Amino acid sequence: MADASVAVDIGGTKIAAGVVDADGTLRAHQRQPTPAGGLAELVEAVTGLARKLGDARMPVGVGFPGFIDLAGTVRSAPNLPALVGAPLQPRLEAGCGVGVTVVNDADAAAWGELCRGAGRGGGGLAMLTLGTGVGGGLVVNGRLVRGAHGAAGELGHIIIDEGGPLCGCGNHGCLEAHASGTAIARKAREAVAAGEVAAGSPLASAADLGGEVVTAAGAEGDRDALAILADAGFWLGVGVASIANAVDPPAIVVGGGAAVGAGEALLAPARRACAQRVLGAPSREPPPLRPGELGEHAGLVGAGLLTRLEAAG
Amino acid sequence: MADASVAVDIGGTKIAAGVVDADGTLRAHQRQPTPAGGLAELVEAVTGLARKLGDARMPVGVGFPGFIDLAGTVRSAPNLPALVGAPLQPRLEAGCGVGVTVVNDADAAAWGELCRGAGRGGGGLAMLTLGTGVGGGLVVNGRLVRGAHGAAGELGHIIIDEGGPLCGCGNHGCLEAHASGTAIARKAREAVAAGEVAAGSPLASAADLGGEVVTAAGAEGDRDALAILADAGFWLGVGVASIANAVDPPAIVVGGGAAVGAGEALLAPARRACAQRVLGAPSREPPPLRPGELGEHAGLVGAGLLTRLEAAG
Repeated sequence: MADASVAVDIGGTKIAAGVVDADGTLRAHQRQPTPAGGLAELVEAVTGLARKLGDARMPVGVGFPGFIDLAGTVRSAPNLPALVGAPLQPRLEAGCGVGVTVVNDADAAAWGELCRGAGRGGGGLAMLTLGTGVGGGLVVNGRLVRGAHGAAGELGHIIIDEGGPLCGCGNHGCLEAHASGTAIARKAREAVAAGEVAAGSPLASAADLGGEVVTAAGAEGDRDALAILADAGFWLGVGVASIANAVDPPAIVVGGGAAVGAGEALLAPARRACAQRVLGAPSREPPPLRPGELGEHAGLVGAGLLTRLEAAG
Repeated sequence: MADASVAVDIGGTKIAAGVVDADGTLRAHQRQPTPAGGLAELVEAVTGLARKLGDARMPVGVGFPGFIDLAGTVRSAPNLPALVGAPLQPRLEAGCGVGVTVVNDADAAAWGELCRGAGRGGGGLAMLTLGTGVGGGLVVNGRLVRGAHGAAGELGHIIIDEGGPLCGCGNHGCLEAHASGTAIARKAREAVAAGEVAAGSPLASAADLGGEVVTAAGAEGDRDALAILADAGFWLGVGVASIANAVDPPAIVVGGGAAVGAGEALLAPARRACAQRVLGAPSREPPPLRPGELGEHAGLVGAGLLTRLEAAG
């Protein structure tokens, strides 16, 4: 038990938590709503979870949905805007009375997949989490890449189509603007509006045409949905090739709700687009593009295991 | 002298060599033509230089213009195609009788600028070398990023404009296709052909309109040349923002002949484009975008200093 840690994954609406053993096993997994309010309420919720789940000496690892600088201060948080500027990590350490590691949630997921998931044994990987947006995490030479300001790994915001669709970040043509769940939904709505969707397609009749409608229709073989997922997958592959040319990772792991829902309808076109674009193709093998293995627990497992690293170094 | 090393920078037409002291000072710098022929001739030339310049125990560091895998085999070499498949590093070790480190030439330049140039003290950087193509090198968490196959750092082939201009690698819209000397020349020729260049511009009258004609005309204030350099600089800035969002480097260093010639005519528009696109802008500072400080010696200094790293472990 001395090697276990408390892991907390803060989301915009829910906080997931559990205990992560040294081998990456997640125990006592639970969820509760993210408290309304600001820093004080969040610190109270997390310290309460740590007391309830762990013993008093267990380190605490936290994944946070935003940009945390190297001093542990929240620099941006699209879904928790009240926390921008909050000294989250120091306040959590004071509240919990133990060492607390706070990283971006996709960074935590990347570490989880590296240690116990689809990136096991590789010493590095690039992770993309496809949901409302596209999160990212990068592990190079066995270490999480946090960058000069803690802002590294935002692989959803590599620019692959300058001047292309508007991204939530304000730029045009980011990977996120072509391959997120939001982008998939936008492509579907545009196809319906342009009269490109068959009358019998679930896309044509959906009252609220979100990304999950497209992935569900694709899973049932709807051709229009599959075409949209193939388009998003194509752009995912362009982004993956760009990442491969920059960092040549042992593996690229794709997780997140949109990816899990779409599966090979998204990944197979991505592999094709990547294989054509990776430098040295066709003689060089493209990086393996794999679905995540830890699902929604990747962030918790990674956050827990990252505390071991902090303690060691 | 025990801490010095022999450094060799193999180019498509010339081999530069010298002795690099522990502090990065380059001595006994000289050049000779790259031998015609294959591996045996190249090994003979490099071993000859090592014997002439160093003592028998000095390690040898080599920058090579292509992709060298982690076993030291040449996997691609656009300007020395006869060497593809050659076990360069093991053959050089056998020939020299000492440890030989062989890396991509832009990787060597990145290490040089990190240790003794524009990236000093930062612990990391992204380097772009703008010449006929765009080379790249990446240092993260104090270590050169070589990747799973030795193919990392090809920052000229991040894709920023999918479907855009054809790149020498066969893809469309790579950074190299917009910001290399070759791309600058292509943009100039296209502008002349489209009748967009003033009759009095040196671009309109050049017999052989290469990139250096554009940079020279830009240095004299020619408006058409400056517009072309600003366009290339804009795309350079898009690529730099993409790199910043992926790895958040302490600095981005731009070297190579095209960059040195164009200077601020290229870098100022690049800084503007990057500042608008880096995630978290305008509250986050964009990465410092700096010209290289070591010029054409960056690769030699880096290749020499990399041998110290190899020796250390």
